[in-house]
Amino acid sequence: MAKLRMAMVGGGPGSFIGPVHRLAAELDGEIAMVAGAFSANPARSTEAGLGYGVAPDRAYASFREMIAAEAGRGDGARLVVVATPNHLHLPVAVAALEAGLAVVSDKPATATLNEARELATVVARTGGLYALTYTYTGYPLLREAREIVASGRLGAVRKAVVEYPQGWLSGAVDNKQAAWRLDPSQAGLGGCVADIGVHAFNALEFVSGRRVTALCADLSRVQTGRRLDDDCNVLLRLDNGAPAVLHASQISAGERNGLRLRIYGERGGLDWCHDQPNVLTLNWLDRPSETLHAGAPYLSASARAVTRLPSGHPEGFIEAFANIYRDVAAVMRTGQAQPALQGIDAGVRGMAFIEAAVESSRDRAWRDLTV
Amino acid sequence: MAKLRMAMVGGGPGSFIGPVHRLAAELDGEIAMVAGAFSANPARSTEAGLGYGVAPDRAYASFREMIAAEAGRGDGARLVVVATPNHLHLPVAVAALEAGLAVVSDKPATATLNEARELATVVARTGGLYALTYTYTGYPLLREAREIVASGRLGAVRKAVVEYPQGWLSGAVDNKQAAWRLDPSQAGLGGCVADIGVHAFNALEFVSGRRVTALCADLSRVQTGRRLDDDCNVLLRLDNGAPAVLHASQISAGERNGLRLRIYGERGGLDWCHDQPNVLTLNWLDRPSETLHAGAPYLSASARAVTRLPSGHPEGFIEAFANIYRDVAAVMRTGQAQPALQGIDAGVRGMAFIEAAVESSRDRAWRDLTV
Amino acid sequence: MAKLRMAMVGGGPGSFIGPVHRLAAELDGEIAMVAGAFSANPARSTEAGLGYGVAPDRAYASFREMIAAEAGRGDGARLVVVATPNHLHLPVAVAALEAGLAVVSDKPATATLNEARELATVVARTGGLYALTYTYTGYPLLREAREIVASGRLGAVRKAVVEYPQGWLSGAVDNKQAAWRLDPSQAGLGGCVADIGVHAFNALEFVSGRRVTALCADLSRVQTGRRLDDDCNVLLRLDNGAPAVLHASQISAGERNGLRLRIYGERGGLDWCHDQPNVLTLNWLDRPSETLHAGAPYLSASARAVTRLPSGHPEGFIEAFANIYRDVAAVMRTGQAQPALQGIDAGVRGMAFIEAAVESSRDRAWRDLTV
Amino acid sequence: MAKLRMAMVGGGPGSFIGPVHRLAAELDGEIAMVAGAFSANPARSTEAGLGYGVAPDRAYASFREMIAAEAGRGDGARLVVVATPNHLHLPVAVAALEAGLAVVSDKPATATLNEARELATVVARTGGLYALTYTYTGYPLLREAREIVASGRLGAVRKAVVEYPQGWLSGAVDNKQAAWRLDPSQAGLGGCVADIGVHAFNALEFVSGRRVTALCADLSRVQTGRRLDDDCNVLLRLDNGAPAVLHASQISAGERNGLRLRIYGERGGLDWCHDQPNVLTLNWLDRPSETLHAGAPYLSASARAVTRLPSGHPEGFIEAFANIYRDVAAVMRTGQAQPALQGIDAGVRGMAFIEAAVESSRDRAWRDLTV
Repeated sequence: MAKLRMAMVGGGPGSFIGPVHRLAAELDGEIAMVAGAFSANPARSTEAGLGYGVAPDRAYASFREMIAAEAGRGDGARLVVVATPNHLHLPVAVAALEAGLAVVSDKPATATLNEARELATVVARTGGLYALTYTYTGYPLLREAREIVASGRLGAVRKAVVEYPQGWLSGAVDNKQAAWRLDPSQAGLGGCVADIGVHAFNALEFVSGRRVTALCADLSRVQTGRRLDDDCNVLLRLDNGAPAVLHASQISAGERNGLRLRIYGERGGLDWCHDQPNVLTLNWLDRPSETLHAGAPYLSASARAVTRLPSGHPEGFIEAFANIYRDVAAVMRTGQAQPALQGIDAGVRGMAFIEAAVESSRDRAWRDLTV
Repeated sequence: MAKLRMAMVGGGPGSFIGPVHRLAAELDGEIAMVAGAFSANPARSTEAGLGYGVAPDRAYASFREMIAAEAGRGDGARLVVVATPNHLHLPVAVAALEAGLAVVSDKPATATLNEARELATVVARTGGLYALTYTYTGYPLLREAREIVASGRLGAVRKAVVEYPQGWLSGAVDNKQAAWRLDPSQAGLGGCVADIGVHAFNALEFVSGRRVTALCADLSRVQTGRRLDDDCNVLLRLDNGAPAVLHASQISAGERNGLRLRIYGERGGLDWCHDQPNVLTLNWLDRPSETLHAGAPYLSASARAVTRLPSGHPEGFIEAFANIYRDVAAVMRTGQAQPALQGIDAGVRGMAFIEAAVESSRDRAWRDLTV
Repeated sequence: MAKLRMAMVGGGPGSFIGPVHRLAAELDGEIAMVAGAFSANPARSTEAGLGYGVAPDRAYASFREMIAAEAGRGDGARLVVVATPNHLHLPVAVAALEAGLAVVSDKPATATLNEARELATVVARTGGLYALTYTYTGYPLLREAREIVASGRLGAVRKAVVEYPQGWLSGAVDNKQAAWRLDPSQAGLGGCVADIGVHAFNALEFVSGRRVTALCADLSRVQTGRRLDDDCNVLLRLDNGAPAVLHASQISAGERNGLRLRIYGERGGLDWCHDQPNVLTLNWLDRPSETLHAGAPYLSASARAVTRLPSGHPEGFIEAFANIYRDVAAVMRTGQAQPALQGIDAGVRGMAFIEAAVESSRDRAWRDLTV
Repeated sequence: MAKLRMAMVGGGPGSFIGPVHRLAAELDGEIAMVAGAFSANPARSTEAGLGYGVAPDRAYASFREMIAAEAGRGDGARLVVVATPNHLHLPVAVAALEAGLAVVSDKPATATLNEARELATVVARTGGLYALTYTYTGYPLLREAREIVASGRLGAVRKAVVEYPQGWLSGAVDNKQAAWRLDPSQAGLGGCVADIGVHAFNALEFVSGRRVTALCADLSRVQTGRRLDDDCNVLLRLDNGAPAVLHASQISAGERNGLRLRIYGERGGLDWCHDQPNVLTLNWLDRPSETLHAGAPYLSASARAVTRLPSGHPEGFIEAFANIYRDVAAVMRTGQAQPALQGIDAGVRGMAFIEAAVESSRDRAWRDLTV
């Protein structure tokens, strides 16, 4: 079986996420990275390509040139990965989709809600595959959590808490990762809220099966000189009236990357934290707590499908990311939708959240979330 | 050295907190419970008294009668514990203070902010001792946390998160504990916010050394038929502008009693959780995390003063509660103020928080917190 | 109901365990300490007594004098607590039993196995109450663990691991606690094995319901100059042939007091650790792990009987110790045996373990354990 | 840069470790699997090859045929992975080394100690690369642990505890994984001791920097009908006289794969557990415990070299395994020895441990470990 051929836009020198895409996409042996537009500087793009094992003649300095060339080759890439700062998500995705190529994009979908809506129309019109790497949805136990809520075992959802504390932007950070995230012209409307708040938001809707209908946000620029928020705290209401809280931060000094989601139903609650991604805890009103372990035979088919190793052999971030690529490859090979794969709908929802949070914080007022 | 003599109001049959007061007050051998008005029903008061080791002739059916009688005896109680539902906190405390007796009261201070202000004037006028059992302030490592923030080791406070999830009111609970807490005529303005939200608020101000200046709250009555909130989520701002989040719940099914406080400064953050009260974690921007253990010799004098056992020998809720009584006894014996003891100021702050949260939630708007 | 009157032998200045006995015995309001022979120095005994609230005329300088005097008073102590170094356990216990008084003794029972056998004959002859403070048997969840094994839910016991790491004797420690424990004339045959190894051994037999029948031990004197072992590691076999491991140490630098017991049956295993005494974990072959919480309503009656607070309100070492005193008080008031109370049989077993371990280590050979 | 070409022996249908080798070897893009002798059945070997992306003409049914053919091709494999049951480790490794190919072998090195010695002479004579996949040595924080001990920060090693509990062989397991491990003709001398006990032994020597000089083992066949041990418990002495304990089990029902290593020195101890492989805890005599996180900048160069992601992004078993392949690739490309790579010396040590444990258990006696 021939490998699916992939090309990357972005992910050049200093990138965190580019190498992750390469590792994840190729992990299961189904996808090969064959081309890329890694940098606008031709020499740097070539050099980055060599690091990824991409031949020099397929390391481009322009994504438009890359898409045209690859779409025209018989052995060209059929999947474009968007690993750029946010302001380029829209043009790259549109160009790829218009050329008939599938798209895997970093979150958030775009730089603004209007852009996301525009992209949605292109996805709809072209009928192309568009997937977002909301990484956490690739973790087996977050998928298990979703199954558990959907099964009704917890009863109706009554409360949710989702948090995403980081500390890496606590000081005056000076690197490529920080630079574009803190620059409105590249990051878009939001800082922390768009970079990680949106992960928390997506995890909440993904697992709870509910939609956020209103929110009241408090976004701060804690570190002196910031032009975008580096801390965001949000009250939310779900579509069944249940209250929820979301807080995310990039100035919580000492925190690493602890996305945590708690969903409470009438009979019990679930608790998943990225610090220990291979366990899922269920706490019950009237019986002992339960801890579920990734790889265990008692898990749902959805969770079992995305582990490679038996219980007790930890899989991590790369494997979770790779699970999203598995879904992408399954869609490309079979044409069948994959239920956990996050597409443009989740992309628009995410941008609506970001925009509403920014406006709510600016106005010091609750806002409805309607898309 | 003679024991300090104590009398309790409330704490009769079915009470949770009454027996805790007895255990805690007497733990260190400095205080003896000698009298009580445990119930308005004379027979029940007598019976409750026997359970506490109180002689029948000092088990009263009226707190006013008790205060008059005990204040008039040479061997009478000199300390009155207020362990009633909230609506009685004010009259009992006032009566005791006016009679020249010291007061230890359950939180919240009173049923309304106006009552708390009234009580403050009585405390000021009489010069009596008034202490609130904000239990968590008795834990050695919460005191250590406060010392660490005050020392400046974390740098300026930049973010705080405090949570207090419980699940015991998830369903239609029918017991004495639930009954008065859910009844506005006994509990006052707030349900969850007044019962446990105020603990979280107090812990935040106690440890951070900062005052909350504004908040935006979302209080819910999740369980059908409730007349007071059973879930509360609050955005806050501290007096140095730092953002904070507080969430508390009594319908988070499966949760027990997990008050948790995280304070982040410029260089690191601290994390304390009641699930493991004998450890305090410090996470740093640029070096390994540290875990401090209760009873260890490297702790501050404040923390060392309130453990009875060497490290590795867990102390718990009763001991923490007893530490507040140690402070009370120290004040009564020496006349010297005890820095961790929470008095009427913290009581007024707590009531201001409750009232502001209720009003903010009602109005769907931010509110200043000014007292 | 009048309080049971207790007298202590030992527990003078610098004692760790004396104050624990006082706190634990008096916690539940059933027992009062009224007398003591705290030191052979009269002035020091009197002073220690004042610290415990004991009147000067009942602070003795000789345990024989104390026992004679108290046994002869109408309001005299009826329970003698043995809180001395090990070499005095036998004479104090014998004197008290012969005088018709009940005995609560620190472990190990005596200094040698022969002494324990001698004591057993005295207990049998006098018919007196003799109880050992194997503290960990007072923890509700260790009692729950025992119930679970006895219920057969795990299936037959197939493997056990028990460990008790401490680090406080890692260096050249110079205090009263260390001095007698390291002195064969006061501690008896064993150092670490007798001080904490015996706790581990007792916990193993208490929970597993099985008896150790053979062992092979390796005892070390790691710190230079020690005359007794400060580290012990033991292979064991249970009476159904199942293998087990026990390791204890006082030179495991950085460890506090982490007694941990794991028992594995055919279908699952249980895991309890003193670091988090209020949870008990059950791991199963084919379903999610379970975590049981102290104070929860789903626990057995045995476990529920020995918590004072609802789930989520941690109780600790003092409360566990007090639970042993509850059992003692129950026996003294009702005459009914208490199933979890550890008496002279467990005392003899413990001494047999210590002696066999010392001899096995000396001979570098397996030894049967027969008592 | 061309990829290193690898061929696998074993790893056919039903194999656990074959796919792990493929994932790990190819993860970093330096190695490609191009051939294999996956099964003695030609059709099954071809089919397995297709699953690995190996062309049918390079899927052999005989390892000798494969080695001959690949060694003879200009584009042939230069590295042979031995993923067979233990009895084939020797012949495959010898054949590959004799053909001038590098070898990566599953542990234990061989089926007997004599075989390991024989293999050592072949390695020495041919000068070929021979590496063992002692997986845990690939974890960044186990490498950090080794650095910490070597640095002297803990002081001299005084005690060690290593454990490896599993439960998957608790019952009458009937699958390919179990079948060969329980069959002496394929597994060799030992069951549990050879399968996972040897991992524990290697981790102990790897991190402590000390050699085991004597041991006393108790091996059991707990499950009825077993011909090899399924549980092993061992007392050990290190070459500086320090005591140690090793216990491993495959019938500890409910356990997954919790290799844990604790090393205590004069000033503190370290604690690493595979359940949370991305943290390493240091406990100190006289200051707070420290927790080190994988990916953090404060780690040693050795640990930093083998993470791919920033702190907070968990890497797991595949990545640890891949780190061993990184070392292998580095040796093959540069000719420079890699300090953490485990070769034939560790292989002989492991076999000596297994043999000594089996004999010690049989004889119920201590044995020296001399190789």
